[in-house]
Amino acid sequence: MCGVVGVYCDDETITSKIVYFTLYSLQHRGQESAGMAIFSDGEVRLHKGMGLVTEVFGGEILDKLKGNCAIGHVRYSTTGESRIENAQPILVKSKAGYLAVGHNGNLVNYAQLRAMLENEGRIFVTNSDTEVIAQLLSAFLMKFDIVESLRLLQEKLIGSFSLTILFNDVLIGYRDALGFRPLCVGETEFGYVVASETCALDAVGADKIRDVRPGEAVIVDRNGIEFVRIAESKRLARCVFEFIYFARPDSVIDGVSVYRARYRMGEILARESPVNSDLVSPVPDSGTTAAIGFSRESGLPYMEALIKNRYVGRTFIMPEQRLREVSVQLKINVVKENVEGRSVVLVDDSIVRGTTSRKIVDMVRRAGAREVHFRVGSPPIIAPCYFGIDMSTREELIASNKSVDEIREALNADSLAYLSLDGLLKAVGFKRCELCLACLTSKYPVPVPGEKTEPLS
Amino acid sequence: MCGVVGVYCDDETITSKIVYFTLYSLQHRGQESAGMAIFSDGEVRLHKGMGLVTEVFGGEILDKLKGNCAIGHVRYSTTGESRIENAQPILVKSKAGYLAVGHNGNLVNYAQLRAMLENEGRIFVTNSDTEVIAQLLSAFLMKFDIVESLRLLQEKLIGSFSLTILFNDVLIGYRDALGFRPLCVGETEFGYVVASETCALDAVGADKIRDVRPGEAVIVDRNGIEFVRIAESKRLARCVFEFIYFARPDSVIDGVSVYRARYRMGEILARESPVNSDLVSPVPDSGTTAAIGFSRESGLPYMEALIKNRYVGRTFIMPEQRLREVSVQLKINVVKENVEGRSVVLVDDSIVRGTTSRKIVDMVRRAGAREVHFRVGSPPIIAPCYFGIDMSTREELIASNKSVDEIREALNADSLAYLSLDGLLKAVGFKRCELCLACLTSKYPVPVPGEKTEPLS
Amino acid sequence: MCGVVGVYCDDETITSKIVYFTLYSLQHRGQESAGMAIFSDGEVRLHKGMGLVTEVFGGEILDKLKGNCAIGHVRYSTTGESRIENAQPILVKSKAGYLAVGHNGNLVNYAQLRAMLENEGRIFVTNSDTEVIAQLLSAFLMKFDIVESLRLLQEKLIGSFSLTILFNDVLIGYRDALGFRPLCVGETEFGYVVASETCALDAVGADKIRDVRPGEAVIVDRNGIEFVRIAESKRLARCVFEFIYFARPDSVIDGVSVYRARYRMGEILARESPVNSDLVSPVPDSGTTAAIGFSRESGLPYMEALIKNRYVGRTFIMPEQRLREVSVQLKINVVKENVEGRSVVLVDDSIVRGTTSRKIVDMVRRAGAREVHFRVGSPPIIAPCYFGIDMSTREELIASNKSVDEIREALNADSLAYLSLDGLLKAVGFKRCELCLACLTSKYPVPVPGEKTEPLS
Amino acid sequence: MCGVVGVYCDDETITSKIVYFTLYSLQHRGQESAGMAIFSDGEVRLHKGMGLVTEVFGGEILDKLKGNCAIGHVRYSTTGESRIENAQPILVKSKAGYLAVGHNGNLVNYAQLRAMLENEGRIFVTNSDTEVIAQLLSAFLMKFDIVESLRLLQEKLIGSFSLTILFNDVLIGYRDALGFRPLCVGETEFGYVVASETCALDAVGADKIRDVRPGEAVIVDRNGIEFVRIAESKRLARCVFEFIYFARPDSVIDGVSVYRARYRMGEILARESPVNSDLVSPVPDSGTTAAIGFSRESGLPYMEALIKNRYVGRTFIMPEQRLREVSVQLKINVVKENVEGRSVVLVDDSIVRGTTSRKIVDMVRRAGAREVHFRVGSPPIIAPCYFGIDMSTREELIASNKSVDEIREALNADSLAYLSLDGLLKAVGFKRCELCLACLTSKYPVPVPGEKTEPLS
Repeated sequence: MCGVVGVYCDDETITSKIVYFTLYSLQHRGQESAGMAIFSDGEVRLHKGMGLVTEVFGGEILDKLKGNCAIGHVRYSTTGESRIENAQPILVKSKAGYLAVGHNGNLVNYAQLRAMLENEGRIFVTNSDTEVIAQLLSAFLMKFDIVESLRLLQEKLIGSFSLTILFNDVLIGYRDALGFRPLCVGETEFGYVVASETCALDAVGADKIRDVRPGEAVIVDRNGIEFVRIAESKRLARCVFEFIYFARPDSVIDGVSVYRARYRMGEILARESPVNSDLVSPVPDSGTTAAIGFSRESGLPYMEALIKNRYVGRTFIMPEQRLREVSVQLKINVVKENVEGRSVVLVDDSIVRGTTSRKIVDMVRRAGAREVHFRVGSPPIIAPCYFGIDMSTREELIASNKSVDEIREALNADSLAYLSLDGLLKAVGFKRCELCLACLTSKYPVPVPGEKTEPLS
Repeated sequence: MCGVVGVYCDDETITSKIVYFTLYSLQHRGQESAGMAIFSDGEVRLHKGMGLVTEVFGGEILDKLKGNCAIGHVRYSTTGESRIENAQPILVKSKAGYLAVGHNGNLVNYAQLRAMLENEGRIFVTNSDTEVIAQLLSAFLMKFDIVESLRLLQEKLIGSFSLTILFNDVLIGYRDALGFRPLCVGETEFGYVVASETCALDAVGADKIRDVRPGEAVIVDRNGIEFVRIAESKRLARCVFEFIYFARPDSVIDGVSVYRARYRMGEILARESPVNSDLVSPVPDSGTTAAIGFSRESGLPYMEALIKNRYVGRTFIMPEQRLREVSVQLKINVVKENVEGRSVVLVDDSIVRGTTSRKIVDMVRRAGAREVHFRVGSPPIIAPCYFGIDMSTREELIASNKSVDEIREALNADSLAYLSLDGLLKAVGFKRCELCLACLTSKYPVPVPGEKTEPLS
Repeated sequence: MCGVVGVYCDDETITSKIVYFTLYSLQHRGQESAGMAIFSDGEVRLHKGMGLVTEVFGGEILDKLKGNCAIGHVRYSTTGESRIENAQPILVKSKAGYLAVGHNGNLVNYAQLRAMLENEGRIFVTNSDTEVIAQLLSAFLMKFDIVESLRLLQEKLIGSFSLTILFNDVLIGYRDALGFRPLCVGETEFGYVVASETCALDAVGADKIRDVRPGEAVIVDRNGIEFVRIAESKRLARCVFEFIYFARPDSVIDGVSVYRARYRMGEILARESPVNSDLVSPVPDSGTTAAIGFSRESGLPYMEALIKNRYVGRTFIMPEQRLREVSVQLKINVVKENVEGRSVVLVDDSIVRGTTSRKIVDMVRRAGAREVHFRVGSPPIIAPCYFGIDMSTREELIASNKSVDEIREALNADSLAYLSLDGLLKAVGFKRCELCLACLTSKYPVPVPGEKTEPLS
Repeated sequence: MCGVVGVYCDDETITSKIVYFTLYSLQHRGQESAGMAIFSDGEVRLHKGMGLVTEVFGGEILDKLKGNCAIGHVRYSTTGESRIENAQPILVKSKAGYLAVGHNGNLVNYAQLRAMLENEGRIFVTNSDTEVIAQLLSAFLMKFDIVESLRLLQEKLIGSFSLTILFNDVLIGYRDALGFRPLCVGETEFGYVVASETCALDAVGADKIRDVRPGEAVIVDRNGIEFVRIAESKRLARCVFEFIYFARPDSVIDGVSVYRARYRMGEILARESPVNSDLVSPVPDSGTTAAIGFSRESGLPYMEALIKNRYVGRTFIMPEQRLREVSVQLKINVVKENVEGRSVVLVDDSIVRGTTSRKIVDMVRRAGAREVHFRVGSPPIIAPCYFGIDMSTREELIASNKSVDEIREALNADSLAYLSLDGLLKAVGFKRCELCLACLTSKYPVPVPGEKTEPLS
């Protein structure tokens, strides 16, 4: 997963700082690398590195990155291999000028596009699908204007892509026609901000103008800001997992508060699968909001059975075999006094592999809980994501291979219930044809080789 | 503030890892530096460095630190200056052998002791009060046995000191006679663990034996474990701020669950200072538990009005003047949908300077809240701490100079209420003479130059 | 300036180490960055970084770089700006496969080629002329075989270029038709080594096969090694400055020992411009060999008047104004006892700006020398280099603006003499039409905009 | 080995820079760690770290170290273990005030002193003999004035110790009564400089006042500079190895130019052991000066047969077994053209283990030399040093176990000759009773347990 931003600012000394603050507020979307491209004195300069935003942009780097127009990117480690070459933005230079691209999403037809372009004689420097986007777009921009080039780009690409683009001194934001990933635009006294989520607008005090619509581009240059419709789609495919887990709860996507959606998931779940118990506790931090909703609707007291260590670092060493068992409680610990002799409802947002859930149930039992009931704020995840969320293969997805009762047994829970798909749609407030639900239904909104495509109903 | 641990383990290859895990779980007690001393092949080896536990003990360091007996320390940055020389444990070598000391607390008579020792001809290498403790104890150990030496040490020191000590291959834990700082002992299949808080025992799967009592030492050597009473005191002085803010909520101190104490602070506060409102929200993360208790008791819905950025790094750069205002929301953001048009109760654990509280109230108002009521889970802090918690001077403490109504005005809140001292005592469950309440009463349990001493009632 | 190597080795576990050792021995050709590209499991992997070879390839990196075929590069900091993007080798991927290029030299027509390629629709990622070479060659390789592609490449490029190239699992070395920069090939029991200088062959115990001839390619693949003539030139343009200063004295270029050439420069200089003096001393380290030749021919005793600090680091801090003067002697110090009351001949290889020379003369005078005579092992440098040696602009070249006597005065020397051009030719042993002498004659062997071209006599 | 400096400067902003420059020029005396103690605003501040001077004092550290009075230290890695705790200066604080000590030398009775002090109840923090010196001196300074304290210190210590000391705002230099290690004093317009070698005075443009005499102290405070005789000794023990190898050739020790001494070693060696040969070459860099003297005296041409790689880093990786042989030539390479078919005399300053010498002879033979004659500018090293030079044990010293002819055979040389002891004394210009020759005679100037003491003749 990734986060993208773009900034157009009247004061060239603070542009890079605004990019920095917005990236910082999108850090949850990617911790592997961070980068920025800025237009300065007729050329585009690039700075990127491995690590958190605060690590990559330490020292006096920001002071040196001057300009009125910039984009930024944070990247999530989806594979074991993490290389600086894959950090974004990707910058290319052609007859059309400088083009820097930051990409949130994943191309389903990357390999085909790459082979096609190589066959046409194109030469590549990275293994990233973003370079394919940059080369395609740069080629179009040599012949066509921005709007036409984006239209041609949309035609070529299959998959998800929310982009921020620097084309010389023009800032462009584009959200793919199905609208998989969020993208929004805000306004400050200094200029304009394009970002993956509204929490980035809040971080710099920007007022939200509106979400970029699926298939829409926002173009900012010295003449001001302009929204242009590039493509139309009969269906949309907003990623439902942004609402379930990925986005920050203080963000609002396409008019829907992520917090309120998660709260409603908990409320509806409580109605669908009530349980007679002593207390409701979240699995921290991901289950917190749904647990609050569940508690409110059910009337069961909200109480934290589990406490998370706030200092979980990235470089945790592997313990000895003899210590493996005892080290489970390093990241999450039980508040014994809250569970001893009681019946506890644990609420999480989702279950992927189920291994951590099992460990948590065991931990709560060992602390003396009488009963442990597990409630999940979303339906079972049964299929992989091809649109940017690293969700393991089908073999690893516990719900892909087991019935709910088998999962309950694997988790060692007294009861287990998932939110229904209808409940989820009600909580999120979008229609089925406006969302990508592929991970829950195994039917995909665009053709994916070897997978079923969801018919337009 | 600091955290201390001590480990006695039958397997010399995992001792250092157990120290590591326990320190990691006490990281909230100190992030400036970390260190470990371990007895190995007839000598005590020391490894310490600036930074988090995961940073100081990266790579293959732990594998090289072999031995059956070790202590560890994490240190909090109480002053602007942070130097490696001040990192702990402090290791000294004398005729008595090796002595390593980790110290949680603060000596009130440090300057006098240091001057006295220098006058006697002692020579020092650091500016730390822990070196004074180490030199005194090392001198006593040249002439006396461990128990008598600890007795003499207790006689000399005024202030707070929970210590873990390595005297050659003997592990010692000692808690001062008034019991300011917590200290507990646990048992695993590998051996014994002494630590500041029980969450460290949980982290390595140790079963708690019991808290070290005020004035008590725990001594572990190859013959086993022994608890020895060293000193008796008419009164105790457990730091009430450990319960209010400092300790982890999943810890249990002297039989009292920190979580339950905080929950009761919220409950009692709701009874003492009710408010007719739409929802109760914590100021994250410190106010969470009290807010849950307040919500439960008052019946007002618990709902997060504020979301904290989980990636707040340590090296945040100073923004430009023009950006200063807008950068407030980087660490905490409002969930607009939860507050718009509503009356909101914000619950925090305490107020020190009040500057952040004011910013948060403003933020919630800007997001559209109709009313903002502020509730504090502890009485006003009116006096500085001399026992290890960095709490600013009287001038900086807002409650030292202002009435509650003046503070309410400074915070721009519609109403403000603190928990009463009686309410606090009820929540914590200790008698007045068993606690140090100096920051709330300005009366100190031991003589502090220029301050009033609380009479023993 | 730069150094290049290529290795074809039968043992995939040591290839990267051989590249490492050869780069290490070419470190004098570039200290800014180092890099390696290796063919491994069907793809070419790249590792590069800023700093010395030992810094870039620390830890366990070499063990991870496995393969039979690799190239390497060290780069000199010619400009103030040093960026990782400019580090080499440059790796591109196209329909033709992987292509990695390491380049020693400089293209005179870079800007024209880049513009031309951009006009054709090519897209670039760096600002380096090596990317132009890589893209051109990759484009040719899509249509033609290696030999024809190199022929087409040679046709396009104007300037100097000794290249090592990895084209999938084929290793290629190419030296431009005029032979500006050296390139040689050696053989070991493990396979073949291509390198800028023979000292790199010695470093890994390789026996020299022969120099790559101007306009010749060496191609190594699983079928063995092959030398192929690619281009013919009426004149050659071996850089005379490689003999004067740049190459290591233990290297042999096109059959001429660099050491012997420098020694002869000193000998001939002594004959051309004798001086009655007490001793001959080099300006260390560059003037050492010429000074030995001068001493031998003149019969004057060889004695070191100046000693160089062996620990000159790269990050020397700027001293205060008051200290600026006194800090001159940090890098070089005088041996007072050797110069006091004596007449001293100082021999250096060349004079560029003259500022250091002046400081050295002053230093020797202050130490009590009666007379200071300056002798230079090459003719005056009067014109800039466009072929890879960073030699300042004409304004900065002292001999471009001053007569020999004016320079003598500027240096505060009692006498000053340069080697004659004829003397230099005799010392090096090549004919005028076999060398590039542009920095000494201001006539260039290939057309350079704004400069005179030397006619083919 | 180590280097020490002390600076007293009228301008508090440049003191630390002068310390930096002088340490930098003494870098050859120690590369493991560097440190500085400076008196500033009533206290002594310490900065030290592992690595070269340029690494330890990077960034803006020097600007922060303000004061008029400072000492500095560079330390050589004599053991495998290198720890920051052993870095110097050592700083202690007692009733007498601050005391920082930098030490060049080694105490023979360290263990006894340490045990004695521990028995007296002293407590130590490091394993360094410098802490023993600091604690002893600090204890004396509590009761006595500086001069008397130094007298008492000299009485207690056996071994070598050139010290620079900061006692609050007083700068002290002291050289032990036998004068093992050098120490000198210079004067600049800014104030005074004390340093191990005169090259450090040159580095900051200081004029030498004179060497500190054996048993003499130099004391600098606001009243000026004073030389005080502390102790008298019937014999002296200047380390002859400083002249043979250790000191920089541009330094002058006790009136003797190190360069001239080495030159004379070569001259006398040529007279004592002439050889009919084609050329004389140094083993770089250590044999250079003696080789020049040998060439001059013998009339044989001076010519470099061997070239040293100037970029030998500190972190060289271990090569594979198959590569071990070929990697010999990485640090030193042969100039084939200079040795092919010729008879070569190689001159080195000394032979310790002989392993490198053997490799070099082999290298020269492989390059085609007809004969290789080895000449050594000092007598055979047969005994270990207890006074600060890390010279291996007797078992490792080749001359301790083999006759000259056996060594010749081990080196594979056609002939081998060492300088005679008489020749060495003549070259250095001191009498036997003024030098420590223990490594050459196995008779020690002070009692060393298990070794013979040289009688005072």
